[in-house]
Amino acid sequence: MIKKQRLFTPGPTPLHPAVQEAMARPILHHRTDEFRAAFAASVAGLKRFLKTTDDVVVLACSGTGGMEAALLNVLSPGDAMLACVAGNFGERWAGLGRAHGMDVRTLEAAPGEAIAPEDVAKALAADPGIRAVFVQLSESSTGATHDVRALAGVVREAPDTLLVVDAISGAGAMALDTQAWGVDVVVVGSQKALALPPGLAFLALSARAWERVERTTSPRFYFDLRRERKAQNAGEAAFTPAISLVLALKAALDAVEATGGVDALVANAATLAAVTRAAAGAIGLPLLSPRHHGDALTALLPPAGLEAGPIVKALKAEFGSTVAGGQGSLKGKIFRVAHLGYYDVTDIFGFLASLEVVLSRRGHRFALGAGLAAAEGEYLKRTEVRA
Amino acid sequence: MIKKQRLFTPGPTPLHPAVQEAMARPILHHRTDEFRAAFAASVAGLKRFLKTTDDVVVLACSGTGGMEAALLNVLSPGDAMLACVAGNFGERWAGLGRAHGMDVRTLEAAPGEAIAPEDVAKALAADPGIRAVFVQLSESSTGATHDVRALAGVVREAPDTLLVVDAISGAGAMALDTQAWGVDVVVVGSQKALALPPGLAFLALSARAWERVERTTSPRFYFDLRRERKAQNAGEAAFTPAISLVLALKAALDAVEATGGVDALVANAATLAAVTRAAAGAIGLPLLSPRHHGDALTALLPPAGLEAGPIVKALKAEFGSTVAGGQGSLKGKIFRVAHLGYYDVTDIFGFLASLEVVLSRRGHRFALGAGLAAAEGEYLKRTEVRA
Repeated sequence: MIKKQRLFTPGPTPLHPAVQEAMARPILHHRTDEFRAAFAASVAGLKRFLKTTDDVVVLACSGTGGMEAALLNVLSPGDAMLACVAGNFGERWAGLGRAHGMDVRTLEAAPGEAIAPEDVAKALAADPGIRAVFVQLSESSTGATHDVRALAGVVREAPDTLLVVDAISGAGAMALDTQAWGVDVVVVGSQKALALPPGLAFLALSARAWERVERTTSPRFYFDLRRERKAQNAGEAAFTPAISLVLALKAALDAVEATGGVDALVANAATLAAVTRAAAGAIGLPLLSPRHHGDALTALLPPAGLEAGPIVKALKAEFGSTVAGGQGSLKGKIFRVAHLGYYDVTDIFGFLASLEVVLSRRGHRFALGAGLAAAEGEYLKRTEVRA
Repeated sequence: MIKKQRLFTPGPTPLHPAVQEAMARPILHHRTDEFRAAFAASVAGLKRFLKTTDDVVVLACSGTGGMEAALLNVLSPGDAMLACVAGNFGERWAGLGRAHGMDVRTLEAAPGEAIAPEDVAKALAADPGIRAVFVQLSESSTGATHDVRALAGVVREAPDTLLVVDAISGAGAMALDTQAWGVDVVVVGSQKALALPPGLAFLALSARAWERVERTTSPRFYFDLRRERKAQNAGEAAFTPAISLVLALKAALDAVEATGGVDALVANAATLAAVTRAAAGAIGLPLLSPRHHGDALTALLPPAGLEAGPIVKALKAEFGSTVAGGQGSLKGKIFRVAHLGYYDVTDIFGFLASLEVVLSRRGHRFALGAGLAAAEGEYLKRTEVRA
């Protein structure tokens, strides 16, 4: 049997065909007008993607590199920081802070839960020395989302505290109105909603955050955003840019804008997520994050009597579909299906049917097709106005 | 909403990724050892694909060009021929014969039906002057299949009559044991089960057919198989070959052989066809060819009260999926879904769910998900041994 290899992982996601074509083009030299024009167009597109007019920078690194750059540029050694830890990626903020000698405070949420904005308000009131709050828009390890808009309101009340948001898997999958909400730093990775390969991180900083960057004393060189901002405002990068990825970024942003912009991409993920949740409910797969589920991905518990690991293995072995298992304390307990990026509802319908086959074969008792009936019904409901 | 553009047409079919990669390689010159080696490997692979040890030739033309080459090389002007006409492509054999001054006899079947081997036996007995019988393995306009094995047995009884089979959409989707069955000429196109772009035709001729080629007097130059056979046995082509397509052909054949060979490809199409038929039955879509359905594609009638045209349009407009409508007298009356080529069951599951949405939205009354329940059940039944 033919098995197409399909990624349903929350990064990397399938590449957009326009990205594949751009990556296959002959290399350009980066100190040329042709490249400068592509770079400038990409940065302008990123500002629209992230809904800000403040300066955005592009770095050649992974998402974690982007997180480290954010932290190093807004905190000086010994600064107090508050990490909202709702999973593995929240924990990464705390780990980065400790690695660089920050005074790390945390708020912790159980797997699938989120940190409440009121708890952040209390923490800031109790400790006005906190210089920055770090949080995830989408906690990829659980599928939970934080209320970034409310958190931005809370942090705005503090006189000299910044809100730094890891929107690596969240941007382009869920609403993020960077400037209007007053988010100070947003970090995004290329291999998520933008459907590029990994290798680029994007940072959007508010005017308030850029002022902080100038005052920060953390040692930094490759991740010095002052240097990058200056170079990129002149249409170049401080160090050699990942040329083909930047050309692909322009192609990806052009493709997003040609199909309704970031809002359409967010609506797409919302539909795929709703369809997936409807199917999961109909065939007895509990959500890990029923109260705080985001739309970038869905984290599902296996039905009673089955384990997550063999489900993940069977989807790959029998259908060529790769979903993500659990991380850390959730290892072997959940599986995660992505909606961010270049997926359409036909992808999700096909995936859900293959999941029904895998569950049925392993003895889970449910009416075959019930998940698809619920998925199609949800899709019909959500799209009836346009029909 | 994201809409991936998906072809579910019986040619062109989706390209295999190995084909896309091969097509993107820099061009080679064809009068080189490197190209000769790729060409020879492709021809050897085609012999395994078509199950013959007799000489096979590769032509740079469409499937119709391959059909014309077959006809011109086995018939001389004025020769009597019998065309089995079960649809548009059967009619093409008759049209080619008339264009070249042959004495064309036909046997005709209603749409969805096939020509019975007994009727061919009677026609040959009544008219021993018939020099060749022309038929389709898969009549792509209706989805019907002919019993080529039985037809070969019938034609073998005649002293100097050849069986010429258009297996353009049939090879690699249904059993075809060229040499063992005693088929004299097989014509195949590249844009079908082999998952290449259009542009190449392949002809496999039996020893008996090659003898006929030498005696044939039809005027021919580009399609002169004597010239091609001689050149290709020396590792070249008589005229400039479609170089990138030949390199892609080698990649496609390598991919087929790496995943179980032609028998696995045929089994894949059989499963996708059975899954599709099960779903169609469950949601009230009649088959156009219930008695003679092949596995290369499925031709479906719309449910009572709906027309085929708007279903085809809606699948494309809402889901980006292209299916084929009807041709000739079937225009507007059916739609056709392909199984040949680079499709897997996840593709078909996704397609069937989108079809349910389209039908439901247009007022067809059925239990949403019933088609998927039947499709998954059929898939589970057919694959249970391997689980």
